[in-house]
Amino acid sequence: MPSPLRLGIAGLGTVGTGVVRIVQRQAALLQARTGREIVISAVSARTRDRDRGVRLSDYAWEDDPVALATRDDVDVFVELMGGSDGPAKAATEAALKAGKDVVTANKALLAMHGQALAEMAEEAGLSIRYEAAVAGGIPCIKALSEGLSGNEITRVMGVMNGTCNYILTRMQAAHLDYQTVFAECEELGYLEADPTLDVGGIDAGHKLALLVALAFGTKVDFNALTIEGIERVTIEDIEQAADMGYRIKLLGVAQTTGRGVDARMTPCLVPAASPLGQLEGPTNMIVLEGDSVGQIVLRGAGAGEGPTASAVIADVADLARGFRLPVFGQRAASLRLGERANNASPAAYYLRMALVDKPGALAKIATVLGDAGVSIDRMRQYGHEAATAPVLIVTHKTQQEALAMALEALSSTEVLASEPVALRIEEV
Amino acid sequence: MPSPLRLGIAGLGTVGTGVVRIVQRQAALLQARTGREIVISAVSARTRDRDRGVRLSDYAWEDDPVALATRDDVDVFVELMGGSDGPAKAATEAALKAGKDVVTANKALLAMHGQALAEMAEEAGLSIRYEAAVAGGIPCIKALSEGLSGNEITRVMGVMNGTCNYILTRMQAAHLDYQTVFAECEELGYLEADPTLDVGGIDAGHKLALLVALAFGTKVDFNALTIEGIERVTIEDIEQAADMGYRIKLLGVAQTTGRGVDARMTPCLVPAASPLGQLEGPTNMIVLEGDSVGQIVLRGAGAGEGPTASAVIADVADLARGFRLPVFGQRAASLRLGERANNASPAAYYLRMALVDKPGALAKIATVLGDAGVSIDRMRQYGHEAATAPVLIVTHKTQQEALAMALEALSSTEVLASEPVALRIEEV
Repeated sequence: MPSPLRLGIAGLGTVGTGVVRIVQRQAALLQARTGREIVISAVSARTRDRDRGVRLSDYAWEDDPVALATRDDVDVFVELMGGSDGPAKAATEAALKAGKDVVTANKALLAMHGQALAEMAEEAGLSIRYEAAVAGGIPCIKALSEGLSGNEITRVMGVMNGTCNYILTRMQAAHLDYQTVFAECEELGYLEADPTLDVGGIDAGHKLALLVALAFGTKVDFNALTIEGIERVTIEDIEQAADMGYRIKLLGVAQTTGRGVDARMTPCLVPAASPLGQLEGPTNMIVLEGDSVGQIVLRGAGAGEGPTASAVIADVADLARGFRLPVFGQRAASLRLGERANNASPAAYYLRMALVDKPGALAKIATVLGDAGVSIDRMRQYGHEAATAPVLIVTHKTQQEALAMALEALSSTEVLASEPVALRIEEV
Repeated sequence: MPSPLRLGIAGLGTVGTGVVRIVQRQAALLQARTGREIVISAVSARTRDRDRGVRLSDYAWEDDPVALATRDDVDVFVELMGGSDGPAKAATEAALKAGKDVVTANKALLAMHGQALAEMAEEAGLSIRYEAAVAGGIPCIKALSEGLSGNEITRVMGVMNGTCNYILTRMQAAHLDYQTVFAECEELGYLEADPTLDVGGIDAGHKLALLVALAFGTKVDFNALTIEGIERVTIEDIEQAADMGYRIKLLGVAQTTGRGVDARMTPCLVPAASPLGQLEGPTNMIVLEGDSVGQIVLRGAGAGEGPTASAVIADVADLARGFRLPVFGQRAASLRLGERANNASPAAYYLRMALVDKPGALAKIATVLGDAGVSIDRMRQYGHEAATAPVLIVTHKTQQEALAMALEALSSTEVLASEPVALRIEEV
């Protein structure tokens, strides 16, 4: 019988207490499935005296996560504190220096410092695992890094922030504007302390950065992503996109192009009938495409105690089984500095404009688009009572540069009452 | 640098040549991802002189798969011949006796002999891996056995036979009856030599048997499943179910009940708007539910060269990484002989009946159902020109026994022109 695998858990919020609960409740099952007993040696959190609804008295307590990470009776440091720097980073580095494997749910830490941490871990023959960092309970890191090992990955997509998807689907279902639903979410406690992390696409961008590294064998590079949040998505766009057969999602897309990887986390239109289009509420979805496997779609809860703790425990179980693989699928030292070609993949676009009500305005628009090489697939002009007429256009596939040129030319035509809205339509 | 992992591949049909192609095309990627070179030492198939569109001249040839499986220069025996007995079984056993790990796509072999083979492998410290045996390219075996390690699995569901799903969705889309679409499929070569394997639910049942063992820690027991094919699904049922907001799927369902595992592969109704309901054509879908993770849905190609070979290679890559886990998630010797409680989980049912056209017929039906304790949620009687009137009923949740009693009582009422159709409505 091998010796027990001993955990030190730093962070006892929702996920941390969830992990403790599973270790306690499923002890026998975990031992049967991994061939090894999994135990908790010590825990750490900011405040000790708080009833977390779970028995902690059997475990040693450390106020300092660095002290926890380096304890002799800890084999795996489980980092559930969050934050890209500060205690999470210090304790993770201390754990690796002390020869401990690391399991973390911290997307920000890995998106910002993943390359350095991976090199540190691999030089010491250690693992960093982070299934819980992307899409909660969905085993998408495992699917990508192990389940599709024989595939050259061509595209990775996903809805990776449940709060944003909740906001967008709630706006549509209840016919509410962004500000109203945002205020609802604040009241319900659905938002991070800094809501920009959610609605600004930062949190989802951190996750996408990890998927890009795994998928394409490149160094993690959060700053190379194009990121745009959902703050400017209006109820008009949601409803008019719906009218054209689309849904608006905060969609992460990373794909290979001839010139490098095109990776962005932006509001996009997807067909209403597609799995991504039908994703409602806080559920997450990850779409993986490989040259052999075609398209794989994974769907599940992206957050919450049970699902996130489930992912943490899956990583712990793999360590108990002795599974070891490089942090980003290939040895960190061998990862390429990815060539980036953001927005290099052509796409159809959805355009919404408010035309001033004068003769020839529509013709002017069509001419400007045509001159820029942007051809129109479908156009709708709506009846109106105001001085401006809403016009919707779905373009044929075009390069983003051509569209940018067209939008610039449009702004000097004096037939638009406001800035046009342009959203990419992703083929899914 | 570790020594190369050497494969012996038996069976060079669609999947076998697909595996050869990936090993050749993705050699560098596989080495980067597994840290080890993956090579083919020898191959075997029924006929040697056939152009398979892939270069085989670098590999030794064996006419006899048993000889292939036991070669000194083979580390992993890759069994892609198929068939529950005969050469596939003989060669797999020979491989294990000779100390080789096994990767197989053979659901029939494992559904019938999985327990004995797993015991044989584990006594020798060897692995049998079979990601390709269930749902083609979808990494569902990995998700279930590794990705959800911390979960007590409560239910597993899935559409696991692409041909059946193609037939059912084609019937609906083209308004064709079963026999016509079946004949189309025969002509297009979509069916197995023995089509009962597909349309009789046997192939899908083999897959479900493997998922049940993995999910619930029980010995593989194909014969304990309730299996019914799609041969009796009519276009009337498909269209009338659609009218009530449902789709008919050949659905595998295995769930825990107080009395044991309820496991069946039968035509079921699912809500049209659910991921399962929206699954069109030959695509497969696996739904996994665990006490912590909630519901995870996996979708992808269930067959075909690329997807199935992708799954085979994922298993090979894991062996190259040195990943080892018990064949059915827990040591075979410790698997329980599962208590079975088929049809013990209550469900709503869809009933279709042809009423003879006489006064009080409908009242009679309602009375008989009520007497048996089956209560009616929704009922529709359609206009008709013939001597019989079609009646559709959706019941409230009921025990299958109560329904069986009601159906028996109905058959002696003399108000039915033919046997009633009863299909389970699965909550998804």
